[in-house]
Amino acid sequence: MGSKKVIVLGGDGFCGWPTALHLSATGYDVVIVDNLSRRKIDLDLGTNSLTPIKSMEIRTRRWEELTGEKISFYNFNVAENYHRLLSLFIQFKPDAVVHFAEQRAAPYSMRDSFCKRYTVDNNLRATHNVLCAIVESCIDVHFVHLGTMGVYGYETTGLTIPEGYLPVKVERDDGTVAHLEIIYPPGPGSIYHMTKTQDALFFYFYNKNDGLRITDLHQGIVWGTMTPETSRHDDLVNRFDYDGDYGTVLNRFLMQAAVSHPLTVHGTGGQTRAFIHIKDTVNCIRLAIENPPQHGDRVKIFNQATEVHTVRDLAKKVSRITGAQVKYFKNPRAEALENNLCVKREKFLALGLNPTTLDDGLMQEVYEIANRYKERCIMDKIICTSTWSKNIEVDREGQEAPVAH
Amino acid sequence: MGSKKVIVLGGDGFCGWPTALHLSATGYDVVIVDNLSRRKIDLDLGTNSLTPIKSMEIRTRRWEELTGEKISFYNFNVAENYHRLLSLFIQFKPDAVVHFAEQRAAPYSMRDSFCKRYTVDNNLRATHNVLCAIVESCIDVHFVHLGTMGVYGYETTGLTIPEGYLPVKVERDDGTVAHLEIIYPPGPGSIYHMTKTQDALFFYFYNKNDGLRITDLHQGIVWGTMTPETSRHDDLVNRFDYDGDYGTVLNRFLMQAAVSHPLTVHGTGGQTRAFIHIKDTVNCIRLAIENPPQHGDRVKIFNQATEVHTVRDLAKKVSRITGAQVKYFKNPRAEALENNLCVKREKFLALGLNPTTLDDGLMQEVYEIANRYKERCIMDKIICTSTWSKNIEVDREGQEAPVAH
Repeated sequence: MGSKKVIVLGGDGFCGWPTALHLSATGYDVVIVDNLSRRKIDLDLGTNSLTPIKSMEIRTRRWEELTGEKISFYNFNVAENYHRLLSLFIQFKPDAVVHFAEQRAAPYSMRDSFCKRYTVDNNLRATHNVLCAIVESCIDVHFVHLGTMGVYGYETTGLTIPEGYLPVKVERDDGTVAHLEIIYPPGPGSIYHMTKTQDALFFYFYNKNDGLRITDLHQGIVWGTMTPETSRHDDLVNRFDYDGDYGTVLNRFLMQAAVSHPLTVHGTGGQTRAFIHIKDTVNCIRLAIENPPQHGDRVKIFNQATEVHTVRDLAKKVSRITGAQVKYFKNPRAEALENNLCVKREKFLALGLNPTTLDDGLMQEVYEIANRYKERCIMDKIICTSTWSKNIEVDREGQEAPVAH
Repeated sequence: MGSKKVIVLGGDGFCGWPTALHLSATGYDVVIVDNLSRRKIDLDLGTNSLTPIKSMEIRTRRWEELTGEKISFYNFNVAENYHRLLSLFIQFKPDAVVHFAEQRAAPYSMRDSFCKRYTVDNNLRATHNVLCAIVESCIDVHFVHLGTMGVYGYETTGLTIPEGYLPVKVERDDGTVAHLEIIYPPGPGSIYHMTKTQDALFFYFYNKNDGLRITDLHQGIVWGTMTPETSRHDDLVNRFDYDGDYGTVLNRFLMQAAVSHPLTVHGTGGQTRAFIHIKDTVNCIRLAIENPPQHGDRVKIFNQATEVHTVRDLAKKVSRITGAQVKYFKNPRAEALENNLCVKREKFLALGLNPTTLDDGLMQEVYEIANRYKERCIMDKIICTSTWSKNIEVDREGQEAPVAH
């Protein structure tokens, strides 16, 4: 009765698994729901996690042996099994639900019509099923959603992106000015990002109509792979994606260096992005759970990112540490070649987050993991082959000289 | 080869059927896709159209006999049969696709978790499937979507609601001001309205990423039932919804008067809403098709409404014409008791729309149709039983004195 109960939807994934362990380690009673879709997509794409992740049965058994803490695991599809989710809510009565049960790769979401439709159908129905089940079950639960910095778009240079809400002035008919605070105008750059902007409208409505308490975390690009909990045993190892669809930029560079593949910078590398280490991800989610919105509050939005870098600079850093070659590839995405990005990130700092920023030591740690498992790498899955339109050619070769910047 | 080709998705419904006839009558080669979901929902709810609508086979055969124009009809679910839709696009190569294939009743969308989930799953997947199929089929088609005035919410009183885009000022970090034109901040008041605000994000993305030419029509509440084309033969009669979920306010009042039921005003009747007659709906859609966006244009948004009234005033007007009693019922919706609403509607006027506004003659016409078919009315379906939350009681009795206004 004493410990708080949390359901982690998507608790088998790259962020979900270390989050579940961290919550279990910090005193929460944790249930994981996952249909193993991420592993199944690996099968379909012929890819794999660089790290040899264990089955959920082995993972949770090992965790219980090490800590005495039980994590229950239910294998079902949140987007398709509404009534199983509803029954779980009624039976378990969670204090919080953390929702990672969405297809999370922008390139995969642009791959073809099947992947576009899967991303939309899965993400929107999963999110809506959770909200609908909360209302139907009558439980007073805090819903924590993993969103993305990518909902903001990067159109308003010269403005530090606020945490979710933007003050604007609107002129009325009589010439007076209304001061409104609106959800930051969405500017999604992929089908995946689009679903997150649509999720925000689910949250707006269910918060307003049903008074649901909701926190939406606009997360940057996650890097790293180990957390204190996943480091406790090889059976607890977290996944490490390196392929063109699911691999994220910094981890990809470190892994490419490990297997002596040129670092794959897309376009000029002038894309500026926000980053967060996986250790901070799990801390932020715990902090969000510990600091829920009050009844009557609007949707609480945090920017979950600790620093900002250009892709080009990351490639240079990795090259400096590892000696890897940098190559410039035609950008598979339809996006600005170069952009500025400033992001407000006061809210988690105010709650006590001690940010883990990019230092050589941590990059070294990722590089060592990549080195340890490099024999598992399927080399021809490194290049990104998903393009944002059929007019964009896949570039498998790259070039050494920068494209012009 | 000569005539323009149009697919009407949802062409069996209240707006879709008269639109299909009007386009056929004005020289378009028309194909209807519909899974008859609206008729099937009637079966599930135990309701019916007040008018005795004929099967699609009889309707289209009669139309061909009268005019020589063939309307092809395909019975399938746009949300679930992506590849059938794709094949139809590839084979028929439409110049325009008009999309009515969404669940369109706010009260139905709030009825229970099944109806909430059905509305989300159907509407979002249907819209996305159409967009995805346009891209995959490589046809250069103009996509015309029926949206709703309800996407705007009514929060910014003192501002005439623009046609889709709102100019706002945002302060940059250095104190200078950025002038942006954003999609009007959405304020959906039901699950149904929410899906339309989410549709807008589909349009934003597919327009930006794939260059799709899209028109979104933010329609007011439709009233009336007859158009010049549906009036040509009883077999072509349009549906007339009067029940608590699907009936819309003015038609409901006129029909309630015909069956000697008190007019059912919800709350104070101070809700101000935008209206359009069905004859103007079909004209607006033709005008939208005749004036597509150019390649490279952003999503084109029209307000498709011709006038604004309070529900209270409509009840008074109907009472004056028919002698019906007015009763005030507890509002099943979570909404403002009273609101102002001013709506820009220059764009269709500029294209030549000659608005059909509320006059006694046209209300009389609807009243006569309601009288003609009043024996078909299922009386206990008149009261609205869908509420916006389980805390809102259904009011089956109402009261004669206004609730206070």
